[in-house]
Formats: sequence, structure tokens, C-alpha cells
Amino acid sequence: MIVVLKGGASERQIGDLTAWLKGLRVEARLVKGEQSAILGLVGDTTSVDIELLQAMDIVESVKRIQEPYKNANRKFHPDDTVIDVSGVKLGGSHFQIIAGPCSVESPEQICEVARRVKAAGATMLRGGAFKPRTSPYAFQGLRAEGMEMLLEAKRVTGMPIVTEIMNLSHLSLFEQVDVIQVGARNMQNFEMLKELGGTQKPILLKRGLANTMEELLMSAEYIMAGGNKNVILCERGIRTFETYTRNTLDISAVPLLKELSHLPVVVDPSHATGIARMVRPMSLASVAAGADALIIEVHNDPANALCDGAQSLTPDAFDALAKDIAPLLPLVGKTL
Amino acid sequence: MIVVLKGGASERQIGDLTAWLKGLRVEARLVKGEQSAILGLVGDTTSVDIELLQAMDIVESVKRIQEPYKNANRKFHPDDTVIDVSGVKLGGSHFQIIAGPCSVESPEQICEVARRVKAAGATMLRGGAFKPRTSPYAFQGLRAEGMEMLLEAKRVTGMPIVTEIMNLSHLSLFEQVDVIQVGARNMQNFEMLKELGGTQKPILLKRGLANTMEELLMSAEYIMAGGNKNVILCERGIRTFETYTRNTLDISAVPLLKELSHLPVVVDPSHATGIARMVRPMSLASVAAGADALIIEVHNDPANALCDGAQSLTPDAFDALAKDIAPLLPLVGKTL
Amino acid sequence: MIVVLKGGASERQIGDLTAWLKGLRVEARLVKGEQSAILGLVGDTTSVDIELLQAMDIVESVKRIQEPYKNANRKFHPDDTVIDVSGVKLGGSHFQIIAGPCSVESPEQICEVARRVKAAGATMLRGGAFKPRTSPYAFQGLRAEGMEMLLEAKRVTGMPIVTEIMNLSHLSLFEQVDVIQVGARNMQNFEMLKELGGTQKPILLKRGLANTMEELLMSAEYIMAGGNKNVILCERGIRTFETYTRNTLDISAVPLLKELSHLPVVVDPSHATGIARMVRPMSLASVAAGADALIIEVHNDPANALCDGAQSLTPDAFDALAKDIAPLLPLVGKTL
Amino acid sequence: MIVVLKGGASERQIGDLTAWLKGLRVEARLVKGEQSAILGLVGDTTSVDIELLQAMDIVESVKRIQEPYKNANRKFHPDDTVIDVSGVKLGGSHFQIIAGPCSVESPEQICEVARRVKAAGATMLRGGAFKPRTSPYAFQGLRAEGMEMLLEAKRVTGMPIVTEIMNLSHLSLFEQVDVIQVGARNMQNFEMLKELGGTQKPILLKRGLANTMEELLMSAEYIMAGGNKNVILCERGIRTFETYTRNTLDISAVPLLKELSHLPVVVDPSHATGIARMVRPMSLASVAAGADALIIEVHNDPANALCDGAQSLTPDAFDALAKDIAPLLPLVGKTL
Repeated sequence: MIVVLKGGASERQIGDLTAWLKGLRVEARLVKGEQSAILGLVGDTTSVDIELLQAMDIVESVKRIQEPYKNANRKFHPDDTVIDVSGVKLGGSHFQIIAGPCSVESPEQICEVARRVKAAGATMLRGGAFKPRTSPYAFQGLRAEGMEMLLEAKRVTGMPIVTEIMNLSHLSLFEQVDVIQVGARNMQNFEMLKELGGTQKPILLKRGLANTMEELLMSAEYIMAGGNKNVILCERGIRTFETYTRNTLDISAVPLLKELSHLPVVVDPSHATGIARMVRPMSLASVAAGADALIIEVHNDPANALCDGAQSLTPDAFDALAKDIAPLLPLVGKTL
Repeated sequence: MIVVLKGGASERQIGDLTAWLKGLRVEARLVKGEQSAILGLVGDTTSVDIELLQAMDIVESVKRIQEPYKNANRKFHPDDTVIDVSGVKLGGSHFQIIAGPCSVESPEQICEVARRVKAAGATMLRGGAFKPRTSPYAFQGLRAEGMEMLLEAKRVTGMPIVTEIMNLSHLSLFEQVDVIQVGARNMQNFEMLKELGGTQKPILLKRGLANTMEELLMSAEYIMAGGNKNVILCERGIRTFETYTRNTLDISAVPLLKELSHLPVVVDPSHATGIARMVRPMSLASVAAGADALIIEVHNDPANALCDGAQSLTPDAFDALAKDIAPLLPLVGKTL
Repeated sequence: MIVVLKGGASERQIGDLTAWLKGLRVEARLVKGEQSAILGLVGDTTSVDIELLQAMDIVESVKRIQEPYKNANRKFHPDDTVIDVSGVKLGGSHFQIIAGPCSVESPEQICEVARRVKAAGATMLRGGAFKPRTSPYAFQGLRAEGMEMLLEAKRVTGMPIVTEIMNLSHLSLFEQVDVIQVGARNMQNFEMLKELGGTQKPILLKRGLANTMEELLMSAEYIMAGGNKNVILCERGIRTFETYTRNTLDISAVPLLKELSHLPVVVDPSHATGIARMVRPMSLASVAAGADALIIEVHNDPANALCDGAQSLTPDAFDALAKDIAPLLPLVGKTL
Repeated sequence: MIVVLKGGASERQIGDLTAWLKGLRVEARLVKGEQSAILGLVGDTTSVDIELLQAMDIVESVKRIQEPYKNANRKFHPDDTVIDVSGVKLGGSHFQIIAGPCSVESPEQICEVARRVKAAGATMLRGGAFKPRTSPYAFQGLRAEGMEMLLEAKRVTGMPIVTEIMNLSHLSLFEQVDVIQVGARNMQNFEMLKELGGTQKPILLKRGLANTMEELLMSAEYIMAGGNKNVILCERGIRTFETYTRNTLDISAVPLLKELSHLPVVVDPSHATGIARMVRPMSLASVAAGADALIIEVHNDPANALCDGAQSLTPDAFDALAKDIAPLLPLVGKTL
């Protein structure tokens, strides 16, 4: 950590600051220039509250050199973390496809989609029971009832299930859920992260719409600091000025997150683009960039053809995509 | 609402869609061009799930004409809402200043700051007991203990207090709080919004870092749809590519939110810029743009001069600012 | 095009507007609702000045249905454009790699890099003679002298060359250049685009840092409207809030631009990320997403090891990357 | 400037770098920590090419402490620059209003608007002869003919005129123009900036849609390094995710630019928001934040009422706004 001091900092003030840092077991080395002076901090600076430091009278700015996260940091855990999701391995050389509908709508729908995606190669089932919706007047999911249907699909197909939590008071409903998803809008719901850190469930943590990769890793750190090391990072698009796609899928986050952290990285091309036609090319690109898994929306083909999901693939399109992914895997050192 | 249909939509499919809309009491009028056809929807379209509509096979895109919010909409409530915060009126021709420290640190600190800002003209006290922090290793606030200190400051000064909730399980601690703040990171914590909609407490709803004005109004709508009409909107800066300021304060949100909605609009110049020197010009600009209140960080001047808050004003600077605001108010039709 | 009218629009005003549109050979069909009315415009609306329309008294907003570009539009040119760059084919089933140093530094440097990248599989040579630099005090390129060195490298290796123009007054220097590059900062230098539209040189048009895909296509339209159909689109990263990478490479632009337009799409992973380690995964991802070419920075390995380019590959790393790209090409229907 | 070195940097490499810096008259002081080492650079670092430094093998990252601009820097020129625009003073305690139509349309139109805005208090006339338009099919301005009309309005009213240059080959047409405007899209057209640095004309430099304040100051530095010290900075809105306004007016840029630089700062509320109703509140906010001038679009009221400019004020609305601005000026230490 580098502390740039203001022009007028007195010897006494610099001495006070240095002593305060020493109390945190951080050594401060002074470099004086003509117009400015800096302190180079040596030692474990994760314990230094950077905002407090920036708030000090004599401090112009603070620049980090070391990452502010430990548990999620590859420097301290060089090997890839492989998470065991009820027997399905995620991370390292393993590649997985998580698939299923946006919302659970009926027992028939979820079981039918589950069967289709399993046959095509998916190894985990996704489906929303609690749905975050911008409008209070929009469908909010089947909630507890939807959870029952998901568990039924799990029993029928044997696939581990991934579903989103929106309220900590629902936690007891997630006992048989295999992976708890924290949605993009809750990525910095720190109270939720702390609570989930107290469980041992694998957590699929989605990157917030306007959150940096470092903030995503800090949110993972919240969960891990609580004792739960089973965190799966998920890139799902960030908000930019471009309006053609719903969000801009930041595929560069895949190799960067994997460089910075040992945690597995999943990509959600369906929500990122919001356009079913883009799911295939963005899935292939994500695999080529080194993603450990994809999470893809698949909807069964209803008879009346009214609703097939703006961002959802049909089971047939998913089947074709899974076949196209297979030959890519050896090129990135992975196996399905 | 306008539904642009895909090129190949058949007569039967258009008929199905029209019938489905009729079931929602919305009339669809067809306009056929050479290369495309559109449906103009007439009636109350708030009940139409736009994402479902966009997901339909024959739909190219959906464009809204009417706003998707009702309770928060000025069209249906032309008069300014004036919220009574324990006797302090917010909205309409009233102007208020909410001031206080970022975090509650001790009974002496919060009471001292409260006395100073009250003397300078502040009419409500802010202070954080539960603090959202990016890092799990940073100070998380004094929590329940901090709430006690805030209530002590309220008793001593008689000022209504504003403080942030981070977890619904803490709601019972907020009984004597006058305004509950929903932080930027929880603006789309829909479960929290619903629950707060069941109370009658005034809610200070901060705009999320990457949320549009329409999304802010939809979050207000969540609270209002639950029966709580006492919503105060707060602009606190959005995330952009500019890194010189912590966020970019979107002052145009003030007149726009007040045009779209009847709810009062507060500006937080301290968090937006993160720079104490910017609080004064941004406060004056906000008042000139028509804000109903300001929420300003003020920290007492500690003896050791180590920490005066990167974005906090000293009580003296706050005093000077309050004096500068006064002559602006008649120009925008407001009184303190 | 859909014109949403303001509440108070009179019959006479609507009549005037309809007549004005008729003069542009566009038919306006009225749909009246209870609270609002819309005009659906039928016919070729590219001639309608949308900003003028939006400026009209009785117009609330204007929403496009058709794209505002013709020459660049795949709807009117369903087949992929294949551009012949001095014998090298770009677009369709052809895949090309453009490689070379950021700046031309000396005849030896550019010739040596050219030989190395050609041997590794590159089919065109890039190198900057005129360099856009944020600071007036930074190296501005060898300019006319650098052009001579580039041409020397072309003579020696037989590779077509790609280099950037920054000033129309330099155009005569570009006579033997095979592809003229328009940099991101000049994407909306409309006077430059018009002038280049009068030549028959292939133009590599880079997407601006804050420009939408539609704006990129409109800039291509400027060149094509002038008669030059040889436009190559280039995605090179957009500016977002994320600071870890220099820009955010928008790989979803590849399939989207190819869907909207028949023009070839090139990706520049070097400038987008600014990090040499990211060039490989982002290159593979771009190929998997369907890019027609890559443009990659390669720097020869100087003896003193002082400068190897933050975003540049060594010739060896480029060689390894080219070998990894080869097996991907059949999966996306391309050949080198 | 602080240079963070990579973990494995050898003594010899550090020595080479230190020697290279010494050649640039910059002293490098080493601070070694356990995991990393930094070099603190002492001396005038404006001559150091930061990108070259970042590109070096042993360099992890480079962090600036001093601003990379000199001529535009308030540190070296503490007093406000006051620019004399043909007798009208801009900067310091002077406040000016620049007003006029978006485009020059006819001699009658421009003279009529000029008379009206002058009567209301405007001291300079704006109007576009060369118009940057996204579409090649949109009206491109009356060009040379429009320049003649502007000069006629100048003769008639005696007001200095401000108009945009889009092509250096038009420079001779600008001889009698009082202020040459560089549009947002040309803010980083470095060849244009250099050429304008060779004139003595006041330059109104608009901030680019995605450019930081530092980049704006670096573009000013290009002009000033050429010898032309008459640069006026203009904030006109930046591109963000918010789509309700055309751009997001960054009013915090006003006090920040004035803190960083001695150059006058103008705000363009018309282009920033694109909404005429927002011009008034955003103008008042800009004045309250300390702007030195406003540049406002005013259109005369055409008989047929078809076109009054989505973002333009009528002369009457402008008149009312000018009256509202007057009482604000003493509060910010300015006089009209």
C-alpha cells in the first residue's frame, strides 16, 4: 500500500501516522520528493481500513499494491479449487453445464426441461422459484411452491439443483438445494453474504451489474471469511452504455478472475445478452476463454408457441450447443 | 405500449396475441407496413408483463409509452407529496438539511455533532449504526449499540433521526427511528422493499450505483404498492468511467424525478463525490436544481487531527454552507 | 418508425405532420388511445431526420423499428462481404491474422517482426507510423519516416500493411498502404469518413470507446455512402466502470455486428485489455464467437529486456497462439 | 510517480531502469517490502512516457502522483485565466451567456435569434454551420454558406461568434470567427488540436462523451503546448447507462476542473440533457457550482410551430432564464 501525503504534512503528523500504522503491524517507509512525499507500507495491509486512511488530514491518496482479499486470492492458494456439488465436480479440469428454465412454472414443465437438458449433457438443473423483478406487478415466481417442484425434478432426474435466494428468512427452504445462487442485485447484500458464510452450501455468486471484479472477489471474501470456502463466481454481464444487448458480457473477466483467484468461474450468457440467438456464440467464446461452467436458460416448447423465452434456448437448440461445446474442451484442457 | 411484430408473424399468431391482451383488458390495434407490423396497445398496460411479452415468438420488440409505475407517478398525483417526519415537513415548498457523521462512534461524538449541526440549521440527524462495507475486514458499524447512541442524540436534541437498515431481522431496532434509509446496494433488494411497504415509516430510498431513474421509481413503487406512501427519493451519484470523483452526481435526476413523480427528492453530495471540498458546490447546485433536501456528512473535529473524513465537512464548514444555502431558497420557491 | 404524440396534439397539427411526412414519401398511420396517440410510419424512413422529428412541438418521442443504415445492412445484402486486400481475402469463410508492433521504431525492428509473424501464420502486417497519444509530450510516432519503413517491410515480406491515418492531409502518404485504419478516437470524425468514402482503399474502422454498435454501423455507412464498400469493422473494447482492464472487450459485438451487417468483423484483443496475458484467451474467445480476423500486437524481443510491450506478445507467444487458433477454425466454419 | 516493480525484478534490471530514468533527469528511490518493491520518482515526471514505463518487463504498474499537464495546471498558474473574446471577458469574476440556434438556417433566422438573445442578456452568439451528424443522410449544416450568415449576424449585432470546426482544411473560413469550437467527437483529434495550438484564437474545447477530466485537460495541453493559451473548457454531458437524458451532465466537473486548472469552464446544458425543460434547472445548477459561462441553444419561434427544437429554448424562455440567473451571480462572486 502506498500513501501519498499532502504537501503541508508536518514531521509530527507523519510521525503520528507511522506510529498508528505500527500498531497495526505495518511498517511505513518514507520517500520524500521536492513537491510531495509518500509512505510505502510494508507488511500485511489487509487489516488497514483504506477508507479511514484516505480520510486522514495529511493523506492525499492511497494506492493499493496488494489485493485486499486473502481467502479468495490465488497468491495464497495457487491450486484451482474444485467444488463437489453433490458428486458433480466444478473447477480445475472439470467442465459443467447448468441448464433449466428461467422460472419454475409447473411440476410437468420443470421435470420435462430437466429430462431434456440432462439427456443433452447438462449436469445440474437451474430454475427460479423466487424471482427478482423490477416491477412489483410482475410475476414474482411460485416461491415455496416452486421450490417443491424443483426438488421433485431433482428426485426424478438425480441432478443437483441451483436456485436463487432473495431473503434470508427463506433459508430453511434451501436445505435440499445443492447450490444457492446469490443474484446480481444482492452481490453486495453483505448481511446475506455473512449468513451464507455460516453454511457449507456451495454458493453461486453473480457479479453485480455495476461491480468490478475486485468487488466480486471481496463479496466472495465475505462468504469465505465466515468459513464457507465453496464459492463459485459468475460473470453475467455488466451495465454499459450499449443498449442493443441487455448487458455487456465481460468475457475478459473469465481469465482475469481465474488469474486473481482459485475459485471456479461460471458464465451466464442468457441473462447477459437477453437474446437467445446470442447464447450459442457467447457460450463458445466463454468456453474458449477458460470458463469452468456455463449456466444456460432452456425452456420447453409450449404447444401454443406464445412464449419461448427471449433469452431461452429450446431443448433442441441446447442439444446442438452442447454438441458444439464438446470439441472445444480438449483445446482448453477440460473434460465434461 | 407498442409491440413491434416480427416479419413472419401469421394472422393466427397475431390473433392469439390480441386475444391474450384482451384478457388483460388491453386493446391491441394493428398497423401493417410493408416490412413490419406493429400493435398499438390501448388501456392500462401496467398489468402487462413486458418481459413475458418480449419473450413471445412473434414479437420483435416492445416499447413502452406509459410509465410502468402508478403510485409514484405524478400523472396520477399532480400535487407534491409532503412527508411529515415527526413534525419536520419534507417536500413541496419545504427545504430541509439532514446532517451528521458517516458512522456513529460514541455517545459523545454523535451528541456533539448533533448539537453543532442543529445550531447551524440542520433539521434531521443522520448517522450510520449498520455500515455496508466492501471489505469484511473493515469496520462494520457499532450496530445495535450504535442505534442506542443515535436514540440518545435524538432525545438530547429533539431531532428526527435517519439511519440505514441492512437486514430485515433488525427491523424491531428501528421502532424509534424516524426515517429508515435503504442504501444504494439494497435499492433492488425487493424482499426488503416489500417488507418496508408494510410499515408506515418514511423510507429514504437511495438510487443504486447503476440504476436508472425509472428503476428507482419502480423500487419506490414496490414500497408504495405495499401501502407505505412515505417514500423519499435520494440521488447519490452513479457509477461511470470517471474515476476522479467516487461517483458521478447526476443532478439532472433532481428535476427529472420531480417531473416524473410527486415524491420528494433528496441529494447526497458527500457520498456522491467522496471529496469534502466538492460538498459545498454540489450542495448549492442541487438546491438550484430544485432538490427538496440535502443529506450531508459532518464530523466533529477530533483533537488528534488524524481523521476528519475524506468526504465529511467540519461543523464550521457545514455552518458556512448552511448560511450560503439560505439566500438560494427563495429563488427556487422554497423555505427552510 | 413510430412517432408517439403528445397529449395535446391537435387534429390540425397531426395533419401538418402527416403532410410533411408524405412529402418524404412516408405514410403515417394514426393509432389513438385514451391517453396518447401514435403514428406508425410506413415506407423508407432512412430519409427522415429523426432529430428533427423529435424536435417537433407535438412529438413526445420517436422510436425506430428499421435500422437507419442501408449500405451496411445485412437485410439488403444477405451475403457476407469478402474484401480483397491485395490478394488476401477477408470475410466470409476466410480467417486472417493481422500482426505487428504498436509503433514502427526502425527498419530492422519492423522487418524482423514482419518476418517472424509471417512465419507464424500472420497474413497482414500492422504497425503505427502516426500514433494518437493522450499526452502532447509522449512519442507521436515516426510519422512519414515510419511510413517508409512500413513500406520497406511490405516489400521485403510481401505482406499487405495496415496503418492508421490521423490527418487527411497525410492521405497522399497512404497510396501504397493496403488497409487504412481509422482509430477509435476518429470513428466519428465525419469529415474524415466522407473523404475516405471517396477512395477505394479497404478501411479498418475501429469502434469508438463510447460508441454503440449502431453508431459504428452509421460510421461505416458514411464511408459506404461515398462509394467505398470496402469497410472492415473492428471491435477493440469499450469504456466502462471496470478499471482492471484498459477497456472492456465486447465480444458480443462480433455475432451482433455480423447479424446486423454483411461486413467483416475484426477483433483487437491487445488494445482492448492492455494486458499481454489476456491476448491469448481473448483471441480464442473472439474466434469462437465468429470473428473474421484478429489484429494482434507483437513486439520483437529486445536485447536489453527493458521494453516488451504491456499489451504486446513476443514472437514466440504469437507463434503459440497461432497454433492454438488453427483447430478452432473448422468449428466456426472458417479456414486460414 | 510511483513505479511498482514485479516480484522477480533483479538488482541489475532495477539498476538499468534507475539509470534510464536518471537520463530523463528523474531520480528513483527504492522502497523494498517483503513481497514487492516500489520506486518513488522524484523530479519533473511530465517527460516520462508512462505507457512506455508500464510496458517494461519488470514493472507491475505505474501510479501518477503529479498531474501530467503543465500549461493547464493551476499549481503552476494559480490565478484564473481571463480570456478576452473580442472585448468580452471570460473567466475569473466575469460571467457570460453564449446563446443561439443549433444550426444556422437562414440569414433572417440567425439575425433574429441573435437580436433576441442579445436583448435578453447573451454576450456571445453560437450557431452551427458545419454540423456533426451520426447519419450521413441527415442535414450536415449550411457549411461555408452558413458561415457567411453567422458573420452577417455578427456585423448586425456586434456579438462575438462561436462556431464549430470539423475539418482543418476549413480553417481559412474561420478567420473572422471569435471562438473556434472543437466538438466532443473531436476532443481527441490530436492533429486538429496541434494545428489550433498554432493559432491565437480562443478555443472552446468540449469534453468527449467518454473522456475523463484528465483527458480533457490533456487535450487542452495539446493546444497550449503549441503556444495558444486561450482555451475554454466545456462540460457537455458524458455517456452513461442512463437513457432518460441524452447524456449525464457532470456538474461536479465544474468545481473540479476549476480546482485542477486555471482555465475558464463553460457548461452546455442543452446538448447534455437533450430536453428543453431541463435547460433551466441545469443552467441554475451550473451557475451555483461555479461555471464561468453557459452555452444555450435558443431557436426562434417558427410560424408553423412544427419545429422548436427538442433541446432549444424559445427566446421568451431564454429571457426568463437569464433573469433567473442574475440574482445567483453575486452568491458565487461573479458579475454579468
